[in-house]
Amino acid sequence: MAPPALLMDLYELTMLAGYFERGMHERRATFDLSFRELPFQGGYAVMAGLDPALAYLESLRFDDGDLDYLESLLLFKGAFLAYLSALRFKGTVTAAPEGTIVFPHEPLLTVEGTLAEAQVVETALLNVINFQTLVATKAARVVRAAAPAKVVEFGARRAQGSDGALSATRAAAVGGVLTTSHLLAGKCFGLPVTGTQAHSWVMSFPTEIESFRAYATTFPDSCVLLVDTYDTLRSGVPNAILVAKELEARGSKLAGVRIDSGDLAYLSRETRRLLDEAGLGYVKIVASNELDEHVIQSIRMEGGRVDLYGVGTRLVTGQGTGGGALGGVYKLVHIDKEPKIKVSGDPSKSTIPGQKRVWRVIREGGFFEMDVIALEGEKIGSGDEVFDPSHPLRHATIPEGTKLEDIRTVAMRGGARSTPAPALTAIAKRTASELRCMPEGSLRLMNPHRYRVALSPELHALRLRLIGEARPR
Amino acid sequence: MAPPALLMDLYELTMLAGYFERGMHERRATFDLSFRELPFQGGYAVMAGLDPALAYLESLRFDDGDLDYLESLLLFKGAFLAYLSALRFKGTVTAAPEGTIVFPHEPLLTVEGTLAEAQVVETALLNVINFQTLVATKAARVVRAAAPAKVVEFGARRAQGSDGALSATRAAAVGGVLTTSHLLAGKCFGLPVTGTQAHSWVMSFPTEIESFRAYATTFPDSCVLLVDTYDTLRSGVPNAILVAKELEARGSKLAGVRIDSGDLAYLSRETRRLLDEAGLGYVKIVASNELDEHVIQSIRMEGGRVDLYGVGTRLVTGQGTGGGALGGVYKLVHIDKEPKIKVSGDPSKSTIPGQKRVWRVIREGGFFEMDVIALEGEKIGSGDEVFDPSHPLRHATIPEGTKLEDIRTVAMRGGARSTPAPALTAIAKRTASELRCMPEGSLRLMNPHRYRVALSPELHALRLRLIGEARPR
Repeated sequence: MAPPALLMDLYELTMLAGYFERGMHERRATFDLSFRELPFQGGYAVMAGLDPALAYLESLRFDDGDLDYLESLLLFKGAFLAYLSALRFKGTVTAAPEGTIVFPHEPLLTVEGTLAEAQVVETALLNVINFQTLVATKAARVVRAAAPAKVVEFGARRAQGSDGALSATRAAAVGGVLTTSHLLAGKCFGLPVTGTQAHSWVMSFPTEIESFRAYATTFPDSCVLLVDTYDTLRSGVPNAILVAKELEARGSKLAGVRIDSGDLAYLSRETRRLLDEAGLGYVKIVASNELDEHVIQSIRMEGGRVDLYGVGTRLVTGQGTGGGALGGVYKLVHIDKEPKIKVSGDPSKSTIPGQKRVWRVIREGGFFEMDVIALEGEKIGSGDEVFDPSHPLRHATIPEGTKLEDIRTVAMRGGARSTPAPALTAIAKRTASELRCMPEGSLRLMNPHRYRVALSPELHALRLRLIGEARPR
Repeated sequence: MAPPALLMDLYELTMLAGYFERGMHERRATFDLSFRELPFQGGYAVMAGLDPALAYLESLRFDDGDLDYLESLLLFKGAFLAYLSALRFKGTVTAAPEGTIVFPHEPLLTVEGTLAEAQVVETALLNVINFQTLVATKAARVVRAAAPAKVVEFGARRAQGSDGALSATRAAAVGGVLTTSHLLAGKCFGLPVTGTQAHSWVMSFPTEIESFRAYATTFPDSCVLLVDTYDTLRSGVPNAILVAKELEARGSKLAGVRIDSGDLAYLSRETRRLLDEAGLGYVKIVASNELDEHVIQSIRMEGGRVDLYGVGTRLVTGQGTGGGALGGVYKLVHIDKEPKIKVSGDPSKSTIPGQKRVWRVIREGGFFEMDVIALEGEKIGSGDEVFDPSHPLRHATIPEGTKLEDIRTVAMRGGARSTPAPALTAIAKRTASELRCMPEGSLRLMNPHRYRVALSPELHALRLRLIGEARPR
């Protein structure tokens, strides 16, 4: 899960070589990792990937094979390669814990250290945080659409590479999908695994009922039967009912039936009716087949009776409008006591300079009101005017009766973790509890209310000044 | 790159346990890997991922840690776990070589072996082939849109996990993107790597010109300058021209300038003009920033003057309409000398049963006319009537004067590869040469001509018969 050292764009090392050659590599620098747009046209994102990112930083080193390869490129001098071989990450990382609800413009993660160490980790940090935050956000949306029905992750076969699968299962758990079909993820993360049979099982027997009986014999206590191989309502469900009765006679209970094709709203309603008429109210209905939060919502709106949704492709690859990849960037914001800005033709796209904190403004009852990004050391509170980072003419006031909490903590100091990694179940609980504090309208799947993220007065002023100064020289 | 043994859905093993318990695990079975819809609403797909898939099959074994984990699930009996510990893949794999142009319904890869070994590899084979075929197809589209300009892959930071990045770089090379910024891919696959500096480099110096001079000093012979940190045309390009002249005075040449934001068509035209006016016709222009085949096509239509396109996110995650994941499936088609079918409410979605061959019908000059899927051993040729797999009323005739070639070869027999893995450069050549034989209209980015894939008379008849017989029993 922690990327290897060479998961890195070449330019990280050409820059390092340049800094090294002129003695700039030990300057103090600060980089922020942030994104500009919420995925899925949604109202929030769920921070994920911090633990593997920290594991990467802890383990970062170029081994002999890496150094031999780099030498073979004929780009780097011996002294620089010797420096690389001794390079370890000894910087400080401040970050939102996994499961924190985060928004555009906020530095999810800040690295302070030497210019060399803070620069060289760019590609891997982006790779990990971009993907896991994308999938955790998708998972949270799916979980919310399905609740109170549960969700299980089924995506390994459509994930992007083997680590795409493993990282996706982890990130889905951060977002609240805590059960998976994926054995490697079960082994690595201790997540419960689930799964029964494919159509090939049913087709490997002369008849469907024989295949069901065989499965129920081998797994009498965890038997979910796939009922859509031939005809869900005329064959699969009646045969499953027969087997359920046979199991009852032997003191066991059929756990469920799975429908993997067709009109899932209609088929699940009818299946529920047939099961209930047979006195099998305890048999659960599992549905799968290209599901996502929107399909699940429509199944529910049409009265579908699904107890467990199996969600694969669109979850583990983070698909959807504005999905596929979180466009996180990693920008230099401070060097040698000087705040830095990257300007853009569109001023609203200019970076947010300086060393900063991210304050969450919290109303009574714990509800989230807005976030304010401020300069390190700046004092802000109720009554202060704050500014929209994209539309400087839009401003607001921090309401009275609110308190401010920094959403980030120091996750690593001097290259060592500040605290042990929390369990995935604890992270998923954090996600759920943060979502309960969000304005309801911001949780909507489509056209959500835009949660306010604003800049503090001093930060806003600094940014305007630096934009003004960033004229061609 | 080769997935570990536990990259597997649990149901592969619950099925295996069931087969094992009733002595069915050594039956002879055949599974086909195929997809139903072309990605990106395009006209073709490029087969990729075979080499890592074969590496997986060769190396598949459950180690002690895996077996301990599986035992801890309390689902499996000791005799079955002992069987798993000895399980090796000894089957036969017939597949289209990487770089082959492939189409819906065609078995890209067929596994014949015991029911156990052929079933248990499902998840990993799908994971590898689905993702790499998706990205190779995207890469081929991007390369074609850019030609004669070149393309370099820049996607590691937005890829889905570390193996998502590595596999994507490999698959992009299959599709023809043979240069990357990604060092791990350079090391693993011997691909040329490229990259110079980020905005943070420019911002780490007091002025842009100082940052350019510093870079040109360290890398005089491979210097590409990022010109959009402050103002591309008023600052970046004029400063790059100054540095180019200084390099000339020292006997070196500026390799290029890179534009990473703004209106790339306009900025590249103007940059070309400024460079040419300065007598720097040899300096190349590199463009990047959320590119894909459509954006590249529009830059070219607007007279953009780009020599090298850096393509990242949308390439390595296979984004685009109908993208994000190739929906490949792995279906049982034959067991114990009996062809098998999985029917569907929509008959056109029923699987294609039996052991088959995939024939490419080739016109004089080597041009591809259509593909015909036939039963193993069935004789077909010019004049035969063939049938559309989705619309049985639509049929066609294999034209006179054509020859038929099987697009697949036996890649593995008895668990051992038939031939060594070809080099990525050789695979990319295959992709390019196959694309040259395709009907021009099928290469179109939007609304392409639909290349014909048909079923042979005997296969068509078998499928109809099995659909008819697949009544509920």
